[in-house]
Amino acid sequence: MIDDTDPLVLFMPSGKRGHFPVGTPILDAGRELGVYIESVCGGRGICGRCQIENQSGNFAKHGITSSQDSISPVGAKEKRYADKRELKPGRRLSCSATIQGDLVVDIPADVQVNAQVVRKADDGRHIDRNPAIHLCYVEVPEPDMHNPLGDFDRLKTELVKDWDSVDGDSSNLEDLTIDHHLLTRLQPILRKGKWKVTAAIHKDGGATRPTLIGLYPGLHNEAYGIACDIGSTTIAMHLVSLLSGATIATSGTSNPQIRFGEDLMSRVSWVMMNPDGREAMTLAVRDALNQLISQVCSEADIEADDILDMTFVGNPIMHHLFLGIDPTQLGVAPFALAISSSIQMFACELDLKVNPGARVYVLPCIAGHVGADAAAATLAEGPHRQDDLMLLVDVGTNAEIVLGNRLRTITASSPTGPAFEGAEISCGQRAAPGAIERVRIDPETLEPRIRIIGVEKWSNEEGFDEEAEKHGITGVCGSGIIEVVAEMYLTGIITHDGVIDGKMAAKSDRIIANQRTWSYVLWNGTQQLTISQTDIRAIQLAKAALYAGIRLLMDKMQIKSVDQIRFAGAFGSFIDPKYAMVIGLIPDCELDRVHAVGNAAGVGAKMALLNQDHRREIEETVQKIEKIETALEPDFQQHFVNAMALPNKVELFPKLEKQVKLPDVNTGSLGDTTESSRPKRRRRTRAN
Amino acid sequence: MIDDTDPLVLFMPSGKRGHFPVGTPILDAGRELGVYIESVCGGRGICGRCQIENQSGNFAKHGITSSQDSISPVGAKEKRYADKRELKPGRRLSCSATIQGDLVVDIPADVQVNAQVVRKADDGRHIDRNPAIHLCYVEVPEPDMHNPLGDFDRLKTELVKDWDSVDGDSSNLEDLTIDHHLLTRLQPILRKGKWKVTAAIHKDGGATRPTLIGLYPGLHNEAYGIACDIGSTTIAMHLVSLLSGATIATSGTSNPQIRFGEDLMSRVSWVMMNPDGREAMTLAVRDALNQLISQVCSEADIEADDILDMTFVGNPIMHHLFLGIDPTQLGVAPFALAISSSIQMFACELDLKVNPGARVYVLPCIAGHVGADAAAATLAEGPHRQDDLMLLVDVGTNAEIVLGNRLRTITASSPTGPAFEGAEISCGQRAAPGAIERVRIDPETLEPRIRIIGVEKWSNEEGFDEEAEKHGITGVCGSGIIEVVAEMYLTGIITHDGVIDGKMAAKSDRIIANQRTWSYVLWNGTQQLTISQTDIRAIQLAKAALYAGIRLLMDKMQIKSVDQIRFAGAFGSFIDPKYAMVIGLIPDCELDRVHAVGNAAGVGAKMALLNQDHRREIEETVQKIEKIETALEPDFQQHFVNAMALPNKVELFPKLEKQVKLPDVNTGSLGDTTESSRPKRRRRTRAN
Repeated sequence: MIDDTDPLVLFMPSGKRGHFPVGTPILDAGRELGVYIESVCGGRGICGRCQIENQSGNFAKHGITSSQDSISPVGAKEKRYADKRELKPGRRLSCSATIQGDLVVDIPADVQVNAQVVRKADDGRHIDRNPAIHLCYVEVPEPDMHNPLGDFDRLKTELVKDWDSVDGDSSNLEDLTIDHHLLTRLQPILRKGKWKVTAAIHKDGGATRPTLIGLYPGLHNEAYGIACDIGSTTIAMHLVSLLSGATIATSGTSNPQIRFGEDLMSRVSWVMMNPDGREAMTLAVRDALNQLISQVCSEADIEADDILDMTFVGNPIMHHLFLGIDPTQLGVAPFALAISSSIQMFACELDLKVNPGARVYVLPCIAGHVGADAAAATLAEGPHRQDDLMLLVDVGTNAEIVLGNRLRTITASSPTGPAFEGAEISCGQRAAPGAIERVRIDPETLEPRIRIIGVEKWSNEEGFDEEAEKHGITGVCGSGIIEVVAEMYLTGIITHDGVIDGKMAAKSDRIIANQRTWSYVLWNGTQQLTISQTDIRAIQLAKAALYAGIRLLMDKMQIKSVDQIRFAGAFGSFIDPKYAMVIGLIPDCELDRVHAVGNAAGVGAKMALLNQDHRREIEETVQKIEKIETALEPDFQQHFVNAMALPNKVELFPKLEKQVKLPDVNTGSLGDTTESSRPKRRRRTRAN
Repeated sequence: MIDDTDPLVLFMPSGKRGHFPVGTPILDAGRELGVYIESVCGGRGICGRCQIENQSGNFAKHGITSSQDSISPVGAKEKRYADKRELKPGRRLSCSATIQGDLVVDIPADVQVNAQVVRKADDGRHIDRNPAIHLCYVEVPEPDMHNPLGDFDRLKTELVKDWDSVDGDSSNLEDLTIDHHLLTRLQPILRKGKWKVTAAIHKDGGATRPTLIGLYPGLHNEAYGIACDIGSTTIAMHLVSLLSGATIATSGTSNPQIRFGEDLMSRVSWVMMNPDGREAMTLAVRDALNQLISQVCSEADIEADDILDMTFVGNPIMHHLFLGIDPTQLGVAPFALAISSSIQMFACELDLKVNPGARVYVLPCIAGHVGADAAAATLAEGPHRQDDLMLLVDVGTNAEIVLGNRLRTITASSPTGPAFEGAEISCGQRAAPGAIERVRIDPETLEPRIRIIGVEKWSNEEGFDEEAEKHGITGVCGSGIIEVVAEMYLTGIITHDGVIDGKMAAKSDRIIANQRTWSYVLWNGTQQLTISQTDIRAIQLAKAALYAGIRLLMDKMQIKSVDQIRFAGAFGSFIDPKYAMVIGLIPDCELDRVHAVGNAAGVGAKMALLNQDHRREIEETVQKIEKIETALEPDFQQHFVNAMALPNKVELFPKLEKQVKLPDVNTGSLGDTTESSRPKRRRRTRAN
């Protein structure tokens, strides 16, 4: 019964609001409005999970004034909790505090109840929580010969009584079932807890029967989940509290499958050539995952047994190998996935060493070359949630491209090859300390200055040599290659069509003859690092493939430019958008709307871990995304040929032109090379 | 659109009827009416599962006349099928045959499509089918780069198109998921079948997501299930076709847990005394089950991999040990079951060697002493489905008693002890060849005549001695004990209160002194078999316990007699109802309404296997049954004391009195001992 004369309560940050009678517990009000406030103890004032803050003041924008008197005074339950455990000043337990007048309630992002937990600096992204796992404390009546219901059945009865529908999940606890591993351990746990236990329940809005997957004696006040991105090069893992949403630990490791083959196709070949190749690679990745699990658990000082839910993403081949599916079909046309939809299963089926009842959710794949990692990146960046046209690119051996907005989203993958990862470049190397990552060339002298990974100073700054010595200067990584090619173009060393201009040899002895072509000497140290004509061609081929894929999608959308560009993945994190645009890797766009978003796939996995609505969102989105197969598109080849040349001012780069003076066609006029802002190199725990 | 002018179609044996336009395939008409007609191929005319017969004639009772012309002539699809495989005269494929006029359709119980299958003589009980496993043949489009849906997803699309809701199960195949074990084998199976496959789908009316649990290349036209009763003495197993409902093979074996303890309580003690006792007993029973599975499969010449569903019943201790649950709590008050509700799980979780996707359904237990076997017997006999008051008794070490009808059903268990199994009787033994099972005593001479298990003749018939020699006459089994005690009572050897009357020694030298009491010499052979006063007392205690339990329930129901009595279990199969009544094992009842029903628990398990509605039925029934704990009932002890004496004519046995002249109180007047009809001893494949 809504009564406008009842106090108005506004919940922040969601902004949800409603009228409630004086005396209503704030927890109940929140739940009625669909505001997710955790409570493990079911309002007994012992778990401390339901903390809120009363924001006093006049919130004119919301038309509400909240005062100290709008909330009931601290009661006995809260005092008892505060005495036993910590309750920060201003914090209240919403199960006990009641509404006394118009009230603004803030749900703090960080509810600290377990002091020992190391809390990772979060990436600042707020993820609304609606996890699939719930902890529910209950007190079960002892067995009684008058009522010979089984122990599980009496536990269920209490769960229904105390917990059914409190969180708005439409699962009906009357349908509760129990995992077999737990059934055999149920009786001792109930007795150990003296009939007071915390149940861990898996609920997914009724898609499957709610299931008792864990049971703990007494109050158990923490449950964790793992979000994991299995990249072909790197595996990245986040350990997340399912109760607070906080990331507790993060770790990463090389994918040990690398020993079977550097790139995806060589791993597929390995499977085709070796009878136990698939098993060996599956074992390798699962072993690595188990090591990462131990690592994040020990970092956070928790037991792996407290991990109850897991989400995984990866490209189609990683996805198949992780699941134990032969990826051979993905190596040949028509690149048939065994399954494209999302998968719900048990962690034990994948030999993962976590709680025996832990569930696994694997995000859907989009197409044979556009995997669950691309789906997760889409979920994280949300082109489908906005009006602006977003281009989302994850560059690896295959670039995964998503283009769209609320109205329409399309995707394709482009076979860029490994050049951007330094693999086909004479002086190329993986991003690692000692690799050249930034390059500037003086337009007059053609002398370069560089920066290497692991050293803050530029090569022309004092002390560089000493600092660089500890790593050595060993090669050029992906972002460095982009920069050197772009700078060579802007300084006229290479022409519009990518040829190193031999005439420049007259201007600088860094231009040297190399058989029948020319090279540019980027570094002369213990090792000489040169950029050859072949290197330039490799980059041209790679960038043309990516750009052709993007152009194909833009043609399908009938657009000439995009509103935003997001680079996902390791490579994307470190390239300078301006240089990417100068060499024509990406289409024209306002530079301040081009962002590197780091491991967006990992963020998407975390969103799916913390909120089932995000699972449904990406499942639906993936179905709606239009999938373009570049190999079937007659225009792709023409786009590819056209994109071999480097961009010039008469082409389609009006927005770039505002910041960078591009060379005219066939001339070597110098561009402006002022430094643009670019993301700082961060800890490398992400996958690509 | 129902149009009364359309032909009327009547389906037998269900009697369901409706009007359908001329040209409607009979399969479609049946399904629309909720008549379960199997079809694996989805109407392609290749599986032959949808056979029906057209019953020509005037069915006046139903107001319908069916003629040869009421059904379409045999078409091309049917001809093709009949040419390739067998189609009995008169049989039609209902997917191809269409309605042409008023029609009476018979669905034959036995649709024979696999000639090699050995068909067991069924127990004559018709079980309507609505199994949880469905076979669905589909043709899947090949993978296509234009539409990069995964192989599973395209398979699902076809299943939705061809099969969703054809069988009235409310599961939505849009929600179809896939078992992990199958996901890793999906692609080769699809390719081996050249994209024509048969899917095995588990559906349970929407309680859980429909799941693809098996996949076969091409048309796969058979799926099997196992119904199993795990008794403490015997394990009985039926192999059943899920498609026809026919029992294909039946087998039984001793429960190997006997080596840990003969009776239930000694097995619980074993667990309490031995740290790995529970594991050893769980392993023992599962090994025995796997051996039985091999045995029934080899008998029926099928692969264990074709077993896709299983149902299990057993008393609470067998139930727990089978599931791997420590039964210790069942050995002490309050006799807490770990779980009383039904359980749905995977066969592989129980280490059962069948299809890796096979499901297991364990029927609910009723109370700590009234197990899933009693629930299954209740399902089979159906007191809750009728108006008559039925008493259902399964006698073992504990007798499980169910009493009731449509309006009210109550249950209890009585601690009868092992006397009825021959364990506390000086000359007692298990039912086995050589055991005395029937006894008659001449009222004049007091000379006995006997029959033993394994020999058809009575001991006074010619040739008995020769035939008996091969077994020896080794002891008296449960039914023999009942008969000898009853005969001793009817002939005045024992009195109303169970004392062997020493005065009778004057009449026959078979009455001999034995310390301070008397004994009756039942057999004088290589071995002398005597019935002592202690033996009589043991039987009195056992029968008093059972009768007290029954009386307690009758008191609760406020009734003086019952309409029907059913003896379930091994013991019950072989006792003569008249003698059971003479010694006061059961209350007064018309003798022709007392029946032995054999392994009713096994029948109940089979019903749950073949029809999910029966699962729901017994789940609901078990919840409604009132559970009486005899130990908590003050009246029980008094009933027990009162029931020690043997019945006499002035007590509550008017119906028995019509057939047997019971002795007056304290007199030894002779009763009538004409033989009554009793069930024949059958193959011992049932559990108790």
